[in-house]
Amino acid sequence: MLLAPRVWGSVRLGARGLAGRAPAEGRKVDIAGIYPPVTTPFTATAEVDYGKLEQNLRKLGTVPFRGFVVQGSNGEFPFLTSIERLEVVSRIRQAMPKDKLLLAGSGCESTQATVEMTLSMAQVGADAALVVTPCYYRGRMTSAALIHHYTKVADLSPIPIVLYNVPANTGLDLPVDAVVTLSQHPNIVGIKESGGDVTRMGLIIHKTKKQDFQVLAGSAGFLLASYAIGAVGGICALANVLGAQVCQLERLCLTGQWEDAQVLQHRLIEPNTAVTRRFGIPGLKKTMDWFGYYGGPCRAPLRDLSPDEEEKLRLDFTSNGWL
Amino acid sequence: MLLAPRVWGSVRLGARGLAGRAPAEGRKVDIAGIYPPVTTPFTATAEVDYGKLEQNLRKLGTVPFRGFVVQGSNGEFPFLTSIERLEVVSRIRQAMPKDKLLLAGSGCESTQATVEMTLSMAQVGADAALVVTPCYYRGRMTSAALIHHYTKVADLSPIPIVLYNVPANTGLDLPVDAVVTLSQHPNIVGIKESGGDVTRMGLIIHKTKKQDFQVLAGSAGFLLASYAIGAVGGICALANVLGAQVCQLERLCLTGQWEDAQVLQHRLIEPNTAVTRRFGIPGLKKTMDWFGYYGGPCRAPLRDLSPDEEEKLRLDFTSNGWL
Amino acid sequence: MLLAPRVWGSVRLGARGLAGRAPAEGRKVDIAGIYPPVTTPFTATAEVDYGKLEQNLRKLGTVPFRGFVVQGSNGEFPFLTSIERLEVVSRIRQAMPKDKLLLAGSGCESTQATVEMTLSMAQVGADAALVVTPCYYRGRMTSAALIHHYTKVADLSPIPIVLYNVPANTGLDLPVDAVVTLSQHPNIVGIKESGGDVTRMGLIIHKTKKQDFQVLAGSAGFLLASYAIGAVGGICALANVLGAQVCQLERLCLTGQWEDAQVLQHRLIEPNTAVTRRFGIPGLKKTMDWFGYYGGPCRAPLRDLSPDEEEKLRLDFTSNGWL
Amino acid sequence: MLLAPRVWGSVRLGARGLAGRAPAEGRKVDIAGIYPPVTTPFTATAEVDYGKLEQNLRKLGTVPFRGFVVQGSNGEFPFLTSIERLEVVSRIRQAMPKDKLLLAGSGCESTQATVEMTLSMAQVGADAALVVTPCYYRGRMTSAALIHHYTKVADLSPIPIVLYNVPANTGLDLPVDAVVTLSQHPNIVGIKESGGDVTRMGLIIHKTKKQDFQVLAGSAGFLLASYAIGAVGGICALANVLGAQVCQLERLCLTGQWEDAQVLQHRLIEPNTAVTRRFGIPGLKKTMDWFGYYGGPCRAPLRDLSPDEEEKLRLDFTSNGWL
Repeated sequence: MLLAPRVWGSVRLGARGLAGRAPAEGRKVDIAGIYPPVTTPFTATAEVDYGKLEQNLRKLGTVPFRGFVVQGSNGEFPFLTSIERLEVVSRIRQAMPKDKLLLAGSGCESTQATVEMTLSMAQVGADAALVVTPCYYRGRMTSAALIHHYTKVADLSPIPIVLYNVPANTGLDLPVDAVVTLSQHPNIVGIKESGGDVTRMGLIIHKTKKQDFQVLAGSAGFLLASYAIGAVGGICALANVLGAQVCQLERLCLTGQWEDAQVLQHRLIEPNTAVTRRFGIPGLKKTMDWFGYYGGPCRAPLRDLSPDEEEKLRLDFTSNGWL
Repeated sequence: MLLAPRVWGSVRLGARGLAGRAPAEGRKVDIAGIYPPVTTPFTATAEVDYGKLEQNLRKLGTVPFRGFVVQGSNGEFPFLTSIERLEVVSRIRQAMPKDKLLLAGSGCESTQATVEMTLSMAQVGADAALVVTPCYYRGRMTSAALIHHYTKVADLSPIPIVLYNVPANTGLDLPVDAVVTLSQHPNIVGIKESGGDVTRMGLIIHKTKKQDFQVLAGSAGFLLASYAIGAVGGICALANVLGAQVCQLERLCLTGQWEDAQVLQHRLIEPNTAVTRRFGIPGLKKTMDWFGYYGGPCRAPLRDLSPDEEEKLRLDFTSNGWL
Repeated sequence: MLLAPRVWGSVRLGARGLAGRAPAEGRKVDIAGIYPPVTTPFTATAEVDYGKLEQNLRKLGTVPFRGFVVQGSNGEFPFLTSIERLEVVSRIRQAMPKDKLLLAGSGCESTQATVEMTLSMAQVGADAALVVTPCYYRGRMTSAALIHHYTKVADLSPIPIVLYNVPANTGLDLPVDAVVTLSQHPNIVGIKESGGDVTRMGLIIHKTKKQDFQVLAGSAGFLLASYAIGAVGGICALANVLGAQVCQLERLCLTGQWEDAQVLQHRLIEPNTAVTRRFGIPGLKKTMDWFGYYGGPCRAPLRDLSPDEEEKLRLDFTSNGWL
Repeated sequence: MLLAPRVWGSVRLGARGLAGRAPAEGRKVDIAGIYPPVTTPFTATAEVDYGKLEQNLRKLGTVPFRGFVVQGSNGEFPFLTSIERLEVVSRIRQAMPKDKLLLAGSGCESTQATVEMTLSMAQVGADAALVVTPCYYRGRMTSAALIHHYTKVADLSPIPIVLYNVPANTGLDLPVDAVVTLSQHPNIVGIKESGGDVTRMGLIIHKTKKQDFQVLAGSAGFLLASYAIGAVGGICALANVLGAQVCQLERLCLTGQWEDAQVLQHRLIEPNTAVTRRFGIPGLKKTMDWFGYYGGPCRAPLRDLSPDEEEKLRLDFTSNGWL
């Protein structure tokens, strides 16, 4: 699945080297904050549209994000070739503000391919790698297997690793005991938790509190609850369209304005569900079109929303006062 | 399943009449606060031990609870006869402080039996009825069916109804749209949410905010997060053993001391999981023995913990500083 | 839930005593054959309609069934009082042909209630008891707990016990190792398997082949495959309306006419799914009305089919040539 | 994920052209029979061991299989690069007997990548392509999306397409209505059904009987039942070690010797479960070592069996008389 390094040797490397990004002794990199998981824009003939990508980045760059996640689930990474995955990251590295973090999804099914992709992501400018759990053989993905996988990747990676647990896509929950063990690795800095189980999140935070390990919420739907329980940020699909509002929710939580935070959180739940579980990436991209970004089509087999679905999607935004 | 009224005619009615508990015009009863779901003590020969029940109540009465839940899932209600269910509630009504609320589980599989049990619970002194979703025919338990069920029960009940959603036991999630519809009923005052999905809880709170409808967390594991998102209390198995601590968590949340709340919440997650999902009622009862209450055996087919399980249970308390 | 014996002392006992039904030394009772799980007819005001029950029995009595299952899931047993459960069995015992077997559902959540109900069912004329897995506390229903439960019931029952595994209703699969252990009990004669997993059924048959233990398919949808793998019959909701056809499928399988059996089996799958998983008991009862039986309403919270559902239900029968 | 054609231009094309394999007018290719899903042997350093592959093929070539499946789930295809996937197929094409069929797994997440991989598989000598359902975005993999995906692939493929439904790996069931629609495509010849739901299989066979569409069982555990219901063969992991026995079961079924078939089927269930659901590919490869094939290690994150697992695996074979 992975190419030999020379094949993608022509990909432009990120302007920033890796110096300073390797795990310093003592303190790990701080990933606290809000990130949109950037979508991959396609032309009508399903080519990656790098122009639109940069255009989106310019608009997203005005929002006070901590950084950008590239090739998360919302980036349609399983539909991209290795070359495309790296090229997209490289372009975003160029286009994004220099003071933001770039978290690049580098998970593959095999440990070897994940190691190679992580190295490549580092070469094209990623600040950290977001590594989804391998899942095709989920029946054998025990704690021991997953600990071994992530340890190998973290050992060999020049950039910090963020674990990525997203059971809706993988049909798999990275066991808490595996997370606790992995939190002790000097090159594993945190986890993106997309399952929405705050009891689990609280337990992870509690059991890793001596480890300099950070938890990011994987969705805006439970962002306030995640902050309340000790998470330090979120990677939120909704931030692609309501980025300012998600960042505002962050500020309200961080400054202890919980009542205002609650009001805002409530208004974000339905829009968030609409662009994630309910209508998926086609819903997110359609909404981006409404909010002045380029959404465009998905690659097949993902399909455009039906008119009926589009109407329901719109209602989830209008009924909460966002459109 | 239900007896004719004359059969349990001999059951002692609660000292308090129903006056003042029927839904007043305008404002529904306020159920905010912390409740332990009281266990049912059995003798070695599996008879209800009313003496131990009263003894437990006396000790629980010293904790600043809002009230008591009787015949929730932790009360082993599916193992009790109708007569026992009512007798237990009657006894607790006598034994408990007069200023506390008594929420009695009255859910049965059929609507008719649920109506009758609710009426009976009111007669023996319940202040409100906690009605679990019927679930044996879960494939047909649509929103429409559940709305019809609860509406009928609420129409005919002299005491307020609290919906009870506990998917771990029922294999069923009461749909949010059904909850929203039911929240408009003048005799339905809230919901106990045991699933732990705070996004769902937030949505329910958001969509019922004009309805004078209250949400209680069904477990201590996500109590802080529930308060953060707008819940008003919790019915927590753990409160049977760490009642003061759960009430302290409530106070910290209500007074905005979120940092202290977080520390406390973290220490409660493992003990909570231990007495609920991990070791169930046998785990809870064993822990009660440790904390000066009478736990005792469960009715069959529930079985005592093995020595190995008991050791793990103890570790979940000792490692968090509670034993 | 259970009444003291005197309460149902007035229920008419079945004409047949229990003599000869207790497990003979050496050989267990033979339960091979086809059974309809009889529905419980209700009047418009939700009373049990015993007249219609007897009328249905007369018509069902002309089909070459091995016997009748009463108070299986299709009998709406969770909606009946204990008195009704026994009265229904008693009436069917009177109305049914003397040479047929009566299998009565006697499962309750507690072991004690199940023992008592089984004794009562024997008293009112049941030939064997069909005992569903307790399930409300499914998280603790380990092999050990279920083995203990069924052993106790079988030890104390004057009539043979048939295990009943129906994961669609219980959310629980009786573990194969528990079935194998229980098959050695002299008073446990077989299992009704409703899950449709023929690999599991084959394994049970293989591992109990020295035990004089019989497996019945729990649905007509996989009846042929069950015979092929070694099952000896079926308890099939569809037999309430297409009883002759289900019995014909039995004969084709038993006489090795597999090609004709296959053609017939294929035509039964959609109607079978329609009256089980797809439209449940309301679908079965509606179909009974079409086929000259009395179906009538279900007890709440089960609801009548919508006109649209009814149309789809009809299509599942007409498109296969049954209406 | 896919390479440009020139990259793998050096891969040796299969000796056989595609002539005669394109869908003839009228009659589709007949895929009836038994196939082992060939494993991919690796060296101690996780390189593909082509020598061992050919050695295994020679031994497998003596069994009366209809052909070989390459890059099914047991081939660890998600762990292979595109180049490796094609090279493995090419090598097997050379090594295998000329009169056997080669079914090559060509499924990828995107429609475009699947089309390209299918074309490549045809070029290196595959007779038909086995296309697994895309699954990462399973929440959006509606019937419409899957019909569109497979139609596109079948339209553009020079070789026939076999649908591949394996919910244990994909968390997704290809809807029956989609299968029925797709069965009408002239270049879609059948389906591999690995879920083990024979009711579903029977329904598919029934509803496609006018379509010249064949169903293969995806496991030896329910092979007899599948033949009984109308399937025409099987792709069985167990055939990698007990190939002669699986072929004998086929013959017994095809010649109507159902009693002998049943005895044999029963003895194969536990070994089959052991090398599939219970111990996965590590279990299958370990067993291959015992039976005179080269099993060897899996690629990470799959791990070797523990000594305890290995003992249980062995017992599943010895207790049924195979070792």
